[in-house]
Amino acid sequence: MSRIEVVEVGPRDGLQSELEIVSTSDKAEFVRRSLSAGIRRLEVTSFVHPKRVPQMADAEDLMATAPRTDDSCFIGLALNERGCQRALDAGCDMVGFVVVSSNTFNQRNQGVTSEESVQAFGRVCEMATAAGTPVSLTLAAAWGCPFEGLVEPAQVLRLLESCLPFGPSEIGLADTIGVSVPRKVTALVKEVQGMAGKLPLRCHFHNTRNTGIANALAAADAGAHRLDASTGGIGGCPFAPAATGNVAMEDMLYALHNSGFETGVDLETVLETAKWLDGVMGKPMPSMLSRAGDFRFEART
Amino acid sequence: MSRIEVVEVGPRDGLQSELEIVSTSDKAEFVRRSLSAGIRRLEVTSFVHPKRVPQMADAEDLMATAPRTDDSCFIGLALNERGCQRALDAGCDMVGFVVVSSNTFNQRNQGVTSEESVQAFGRVCEMATAAGTPVSLTLAAAWGCPFEGLVEPAQVLRLLESCLPFGPSEIGLADTIGVSVPRKVTALVKEVQGMAGKLPLRCHFHNTRNTGIANALAAADAGAHRLDASTGGIGGCPFAPAATGNVAMEDMLYALHNSGFETGVDLETVLETAKWLDGVMGKPMPSMLSRAGDFRFEART
Repeated sequence: MSRIEVVEVGPRDGLQSELEIVSTSDKAEFVRRSLSAGIRRLEVTSFVHPKRVPQMADAEDLMATAPRTDDSCFIGLALNERGCQRALDAGCDMVGFVVVSSNTFNQRNQGVTSEESVQAFGRVCEMATAAGTPVSLTLAAAWGCPFEGLVEPAQVLRLLESCLPFGPSEIGLADTIGVSVPRKVTALVKEVQGMAGKLPLRCHFHNTRNTGIANALAAADAGAHRLDASTGGIGGCPFAPAATGNVAMEDMLYALHNSGFETGVDLETVLETAKWLDGVMGKPMPSMLSRAGDFRFEART
Repeated sequence: MSRIEVVEVGPRDGLQSELEIVSTSDKAEFVRRSLSAGIRRLEVTSFVHPKRVPQMADAEDLMATAPRTDDSCFIGLALNERGCQRALDAGCDMVGFVVVSSNTFNQRNQGVTSEESVQAFGRVCEMATAAGTPVSLTLAAAWGCPFEGLVEPAQVLRLLESCLPFGPSEIGLADTIGVSVPRKVTALVKEVQGMAGKLPLRCHFHNTRNTGIANALAAADAGAHRLDASTGGIGGCPFAPAATGNVAMEDMLYALHNSGFETGVDLETVLETAKWLDGVMGKPMPSMLSRAGDFRFEART
């Protein structure tokens, strides 16, 4: 049986897309419940200007109050050196950084070209390494961009090649706008593995066009080590507002556990967290398992 | 590039789960729109007691008024010889018959054991063959049953082996309660192909646990010839009322077309049909592509 580490991105990527501000204590409870389900890697918050992303204004408070375990890894996102310093000061176990694979999208999202983001990544790595904290590099829009359309693997690999010398500890590939399909996932994962060698590979999918689970399974089959998901499937897609966003943790666990992968995470507990989130968010979670329930394949007669 | 024939099951499997009776003329329009999108195989109606399934009470009228093309194939479902005779008299191009892979489920659904259904299938084949009309055999709950839990491939193969001598023209496998995953799909498809030889293999998935698209792609990769879907994704799951049901045609086309399969079906036209269905059903269709829109992978800069 193969092992997949799931990464809970609900507190950051999930909540970030929600207009209603969730209290710090509810966010800490989200973290507590995720840990109790056996989840050990969490994207907890991001260190950005509170005016830009009000939901993340409590980043330091959350890091100070969220419960942890000996082996938990709290990832804090940073867009620049200032954010990185905050993440380090707040005690993040890992700093997350994003370079968008398409220049136009990077410009719109970060205000600078992809190349300039690569340089910023270098400076962030220097700071974090000096502090003894690993850095995760995510190449976003890795399969498609709302502005440029097709993103060729070569584009992603070029950026990866520029970034590797700075010493990331994890490479992430994100299908930010939810356009990829298994065949393309397998192709890019294999190319990235070829270049990144032994570095843990992490994939992030969106279910915007109903391909999220198919893509996650393809990534797992192709050898990805870590897969992102959001309990309840919270976090819509800002580029297709009516569409769903993050792959739901419970949906992904169902697929992985029944496909020969072990994660160390308890699906029932995650379903309880999703139910609790219904209350916090004041609306039902969009995940499928939360509506349909689990199914056990043992013989009952 | 491989070819997949899609089968539009919205008019039957989709509408059957809907409480509101859709007019015969709207059903005929659904058929007309599907044909104009390039869809050529449609499960149009079922010939059952109108008290049991009021939505299908207009089976004969629909068959008489729905537009056809030279190469369209209208499948009519029958549960027994009476239904089969009606299907033949109504001019169906193919009669569909279902045997449930689990005895308990067959008993609950059809009122007889799976073995008795196999015998009924034999009689239906005799009637249809005498009339020169092919019969499609669907083995339902092929991966899991709400009552018995796990359904082993051996169970499905045993039933298939009993049915093959009666001369079906198509073998269908249905994940009726939406529990399967790609790995299990591939395994069963390959076993069935081994036994059914050159007979066209058709698969029917539900997106109840978000695995529908992953399963459809796995079936296509494993060599299935035909895949069922429902425009808009109409047709909830009677066994998990809050859950989604049929795989949406537009979601499946997006995944297939971007994965090296050609279908001869135009996605844009199907999206227009889904939008029209919003109006007919008085509620938005649950499919993802209908909310997110298509995405074109060509380079835009």
